[in-house]
Amino acid sequence: MRALQPGATFDPNQLLAPDDAVATYLAAVGPHPLGIQTVALAEAFGRILATDAVADVAYPADDRSTMDGFAVRSADGTSRRRIVGAVLMGQPPPRPVGPSEAMRIPTGGVLPPGADAVVPVEDVEELPEAIELREPPAAGAFITPRGEDMAAGDLVLPAGRRIGAPELSVLATLGLTAVPVYRRPRVAIVATGDELVDPGLRPGPGQIRDSNRWALAGGLLAIGCEVVQIPRATDEVEAIRAQIAAGLEQADAVVLTGGSSVGARDHVPAAIAGLGPPGVVVHGLKVKPGKPTVLAAIGERPVIGLPGNPTSALTIFDAIATPILRALTGETEPRRAAMDVRAGVAFAGREGWTWYVPALLDGGKARPLALHSSHTSLLARADGYVVVGPVRTRIEPGDAVTVVRYGGLR
Amino acid sequence: MRALQPGATFDPNQLLAPDDAVATYLAAVGPHPLGIQTVALAEAFGRILATDAVADVAYPADDRSTMDGFAVRSADGTSRRRIVGAVLMGQPPPRPVGPSEAMRIPTGGVLPPGADAVVPVEDVEELPEAIELREPPAAGAFITPRGEDMAAGDLVLPAGRRIGAPELSVLATLGLTAVPVYRRPRVAIVATGDELVDPGLRPGPGQIRDSNRWALAGGLLAIGCEVVQIPRATDEVEAIRAQIAAGLEQADAVVLTGGSSVGARDHVPAAIAGLGPPGVVVHGLKVKPGKPTVLAAIGERPVIGLPGNPTSALTIFDAIATPILRALTGETEPRRAAMDVRAGVAFAGREGWTWYVPALLDGGKARPLALHSSHTSLLARADGYVVVGPVRTRIEPGDAVTVVRYGGLR
Repeated sequence: MRALQPGATFDPNQLLAPDDAVATYLAAVGPHPLGIQTVALAEAFGRILATDAVADVAYPADDRSTMDGFAVRSADGTSRRRIVGAVLMGQPPPRPVGPSEAMRIPTGGVLPPGADAVVPVEDVEELPEAIELREPPAAGAFITPRGEDMAAGDLVLPAGRRIGAPELSVLATLGLTAVPVYRRPRVAIVATGDELVDPGLRPGPGQIRDSNRWALAGGLLAIGCEVVQIPRATDEVEAIRAQIAAGLEQADAVVLTGGSSVGARDHVPAAIAGLGPPGVVVHGLKVKPGKPTVLAAIGERPVIGLPGNPTSALTIFDAIATPILRALTGETEPRRAAMDVRAGVAFAGREGWTWYVPALLDGGKARPLALHSSHTSLLARADGYVVVGPVRTRIEPGDAVTVVRYGGLR
Repeated sequence: MRALQPGATFDPNQLLAPDDAVATYLAAVGPHPLGIQTVALAEAFGRILATDAVADVAYPADDRSTMDGFAVRSADGTSRRRIVGAVLMGQPPPRPVGPSEAMRIPTGGVLPPGADAVVPVEDVEELPEAIELREPPAAGAFITPRGEDMAAGDLVLPAGRRIGAPELSVLATLGLTAVPVYRRPRVAIVATGDELVDPGLRPGPGQIRDSNRWALAGGLLAIGCEVVQIPRATDEVEAIRAQIAAGLEQADAVVLTGGSSVGARDHVPAAIAGLGPPGVVVHGLKVKPGKPTVLAAIGERPVIGLPGNPTSALTIFDAIATPILRALTGETEPRRAAMDVRAGVAFAGREGWTWYVPALLDGGKARPLALHSSHTSLLARADGYVVVGPVRTRIEPGDAVTVVRYGGLR
């Protein structure tokens, strides 16, 4: 039997606000991307671009038509133009266009030399060998000028951008078929808690299923990490230390979720302390839920101790672990898995504290849900959480609020 | 050489608004999920749950403590309670708690019989064999009652929910380690356009790189489809038909992106018409960009003809193809890849039409960007698009607008 330790409570004056904690940690440990690899376009979706994508030449390479119609000289004076051929897709124009001439051109076709305007097919009268213009064309009409999409040297995608559909389009257009991306961080998950059993088993009296490691796996996959599941540790310093060490051997970072027992909360920092410098950087945050969070590192490898309660673990993963792990993934413009709405009901926090309040959207307006840290279903029932504090600790009905999804993507 | 076909223009009176087009299509074709498979928790992230997840028993299974402290009888009268043992994590309580007794209990520990309240460790004075209460405990204090998280029979996750971190947590808690998910649809991508060359090649005069198929691959992966890339078709009816047929052989649906040439626009419906019923269901939408969109099916397999211009192709994929393909993926609560903001500048559309206006967030407010359908970089430079119309065709500065990301996730 383990005695309760009153020392496990924290002095609120020594707790850091979340932003300060993350900044302190990043300055002390300096996590950074783990190297660059090259992947094919077909493998690039969801990866993080590791170098700026810059236009090598002008796109489009020529002035092109934006309509199906006829290329003409705008300043030519006459309304009747003799048809002198056609531009074909994917081919250079067969000849220039002279005064009183017109050349058929499809959307995307290259403007022939001499022409400076396109007249859409619906705006002309077609005669057997000529067209009759209804009104004089304006110079530049229905033309995409060379370089209008991208000029040579344009930085189109910055390094650190997550590659989605638009980015794939740009990479293909620029001919960047070997895409430099950051290596995905491997992150080990260690769960402790004498009350935990594998999800495939039926819990005995007092036991619960080991669910947090699966929530964290989802959160890690959502931000582009690979997951390494480490066997569970019992609530003892040596056992926890051994599993952290196993994680550090196989991965670039370790995320722990304590059992909700007192022991796990005390043992995680003790276990980390024995593994090497710098060890624990931050212990305890001025937040609810998640006060006993531990931010540590062994060498350059982050070791992040999350609470044991399901809602607390995923909240702190989102709010605190994610900005730290993104320093490894290299993503610099994280997608906001959030909704900006209005509060339908007041959200109240506590002076100087940061509260992550579960919220439901009700007719498009956010209202707080009671925080039951030990509940699992809350994560799936809430639409997300609202950050209340540390400065503004009361949000009135009608105020703008941001509802952040638990676990990033759904 | 192919002659221009004035008949390729559409009668605006016959064009459908996007919502009507999708509803008409879904009613005519009735696409549905493709079957159920079972995956392990480690493979379930991002999949679509195929059956409701229902709580089999009550969670938690017992009344549990929410604090580290002492389990007591609230109505017991005395302030001094004799310590009679301790609840250990993962084990049933060693004995009941009687009058004037207290039992140590950790957060998450099972409440012993006889006790009906927990007193937090910081609210008592600890003596060698007893505790002194500072004030009488309230019945039910610091207890999570049996079933408070989930009652037996509760529907916790509905079928059709995409599985993210919160859902993995619930599935593990319920012991659902063999997760029923819908089979991922295989979607073939066919690109046509005589001007297209492979992204690995340098385009010659008048040529451009085949980029749309990569944007569409990203969009398909984002909504949970598998991608089958079909070799490019030349702009001829028979060639296009052959590649659609190849796609139908290998996949559950086909998405085409026309070259921007006139021929492709006419040939896609002709090619589809030869492949079997029902064929083309909708041809032409009252939208900009994307008017020449084709919604068709061969048997139950959707064949969706998108425009050839990059911005148009991805816009219509998002706005029109996605709700159709989600009928195959089975996702019923799609994540909103959107931001609700205010307009900083007016957005103007056209009476009766639906315009998808590219938008940039500027100091948190949306402003329209010029629509250059043929540009690729617009997709990566814009923050998304704003739907203007068909009813409300003018959005004033200060009005609420939703900016939808191109290609879903980034």
